[in-house]
Amino acid sequence: MVDRPNLLVTGAPPKDRLEALAPHASLVWLDELKGGELDAALPLVDCILVQTWWPEALTPERVAEMSRLRFVQSGMAGVNHIPFKHLGKRVTVCSNAGGFSVGVAEFAMTLVMAAAKRVVTLDRSMRSGEFDPASVGTLFREVVILRGRTLGVLGYGGIGKAVGSIASALGMNVVAYSRSGKADRVQVLSGSEGLTRVLGTSDAVVVALPLSKLTVGLVGRPELGAMKRDAVLVNVARAEIVDEEAVYEHLVRNPGFTYATDVWQIVRGKETYSSKFPFLKLRNFIGTPHVAGGSAALTGEPLKAAVENLSRYLKGETPQNVVDPSEYI
Amino acid sequence: MVDRPNLLVTGAPPKDRLEALAPHASLVWLDELKGGELDAALPLVDCILVQTWWPEALTPERVAEMSRLRFVQSGMAGVNHIPFKHLGKRVTVCSNAGGFSVGVAEFAMTLVMAAAKRVVTLDRSMRSGEFDPASVGTLFREVVILRGRTLGVLGYGGIGKAVGSIASALGMNVVAYSRSGKADRVQVLSGSEGLTRVLGTSDAVVVALPLSKLTVGLVGRPELGAMKRDAVLVNVARAEIVDEEAVYEHLVRNPGFTYATDVWQIVRGKETYSSKFPFLKLRNFIGTPHVAGGSAALTGEPLKAAVENLSRYLKGETPQNVVDPSEYI
Repeated sequence: MVDRPNLLVTGAPPKDRLEALAPHASLVWLDELKGGELDAALPLVDCILVQTWWPEALTPERVAEMSRLRFVQSGMAGVNHIPFKHLGKRVTVCSNAGGFSVGVAEFAMTLVMAAAKRVVTLDRSMRSGEFDPASVGTLFREVVILRGRTLGVLGYGGIGKAVGSIASALGMNVVAYSRSGKADRVQVLSGSEGLTRVLGTSDAVVVALPLSKLTVGLVGRPELGAMKRDAVLVNVARAEIVDEEAVYEHLVRNPGFTYATDVWQIVRGKETYSSKFPFLKLRNFIGTPHVAGGSAALTGEPLKAAVENLSRYLKGETPQNVVDPSEYI
Repeated sequence: MVDRPNLLVTGAPPKDRLEALAPHASLVWLDELKGGELDAALPLVDCILVQTWWPEALTPERVAEMSRLRFVQSGMAGVNHIPFKHLGKRVTVCSNAGGFSVGVAEFAMTLVMAAAKRVVTLDRSMRSGEFDPASVGTLFREVVILRGRTLGVLGYGGIGKAVGSIASALGMNVVAYSRSGKADRVQVLSGSEGLTRVLGTSDAVVVALPLSKLTVGLVGRPELGAMKRDAVLVNVARAEIVDEEAVYEHLVRNPGFTYATDVWQIVRGKETYSSKFPFLKLRNFIGTPHVAGGSAALTGEPLKAAVENLSRYLKGETPQNVVDPSEYI
């Protein structure tokens, strides 16, 4: 007992899904600590499994009390909510990139296809009575055949690769932008020139990057200007990677361009599901309320991946998806 | 000149796309015949390329005058609009199954994915202000991860096989219903028991059958009753294959079930883009105005396939996709 590290678990993951951790750690559930129990436990915490967003209870003051803390495993793919500044250099943080790949990639490609085929707009115009049967011939030209077209992926991690593989199966050419720029089965470009090339050659672009200080506002006015005028831009990552004002203006000026997003700006730790710009009044916008990751989580795959990575750390093996804190501070 | 058969071309296919036919036939464009020219030409017509719907000008009386007519090539995949009764047994009719496979299959899978991921409904509820952020956790359960789920295809021709291959790439199990029931890379069942099995095991079903007297109303009350209560039914074939009243009532009784259709009832030779049942008022319905085939036609692939098949006939080779008229009379 004495030798096993203490693992603080946040959120409410099903206890039987954490059984693999029991031989290597003493598990304590944050939500089960009452009264002063949390403050008493803080100096004994060696590692944390943060199932979803960083919990409000773990204030900067309490983080400062966790003198033994060395490891944080995120249950989500994104780690932009982790308080790197307060954790300091002794703590290793791992993201859960990869755990969500299948579900989020399926959702991203659904948005690409729904936008390219105008399914949301067509259903909307039939319902409103706006649809005119005489216009059908014109509509044929707006419905894009994807085979032979080019799909760009910004970020070529677990989700980006899974998006690319669905697009390849559809007979699309895939081109990716990634910091590392390593060649894979598809062309992977890097640097700002690489980004412009990917944006300029793609008929549809999927944003699958982590939100960090390197990627916040990455897709702004010049990047949107580099895209084809009738392209589709899909965001399944974080809203803040795409400049909100720039994309709103771009949609107004280019009625053939579509922005489809599952993610919304975070204000004071909460997702807003809305915007100060009236995106939801635009025909060429598709909005869904951040369901891609949550639905993927219900499969249990993301939690399984997080538990596996945490096990690696606890057994003294090298954990995967270690985050560079300097990109977040 | 004298030896070449006379080919009557309906609709307005680009002339340069028919060049391959010129060495084997004398081409006459229906739309270019003036005054009495059509009636004078009728007894000389050997074959017809019907680019889209059977033209009104070719009335039963005029068909009776085409004593030399032996071959009709449809430009569309469906041939339910061809007047088999008046053509008689001497005329061979070929459908253009296969020419539309890629575009229509992409559209069918877009409807499957958009329905399974609730994209149309979610965008609609965000726009109307009906969406409640507190409900997000419930929504996660409604968004279906497709990998590992089962897709059923009714009709395993060009479009059905292309649908199956996209679904396989998504990691779905594919099961098909086809009259012939020939085994392929996927399980293909036949007979009414086979149909019930496909419907009962599938999470999403795509209708990709020709409309004939064998398939009209094929998906009725008992067939819908055999389906999973939260399944998705997609129709990219012909509206009349699915019993309109039965599917409307099924949608009202099963709010988790989705019917997504690109096709609408034909009344007096014209597609209605509407229904006597208020489908467009239902949340669990997705409607698009028959754009899958028309957008695929713009690629030129379907016309190319029709021209190739017509060439086979004109060169004395065996044409493909010969239709059995007894299924339509």
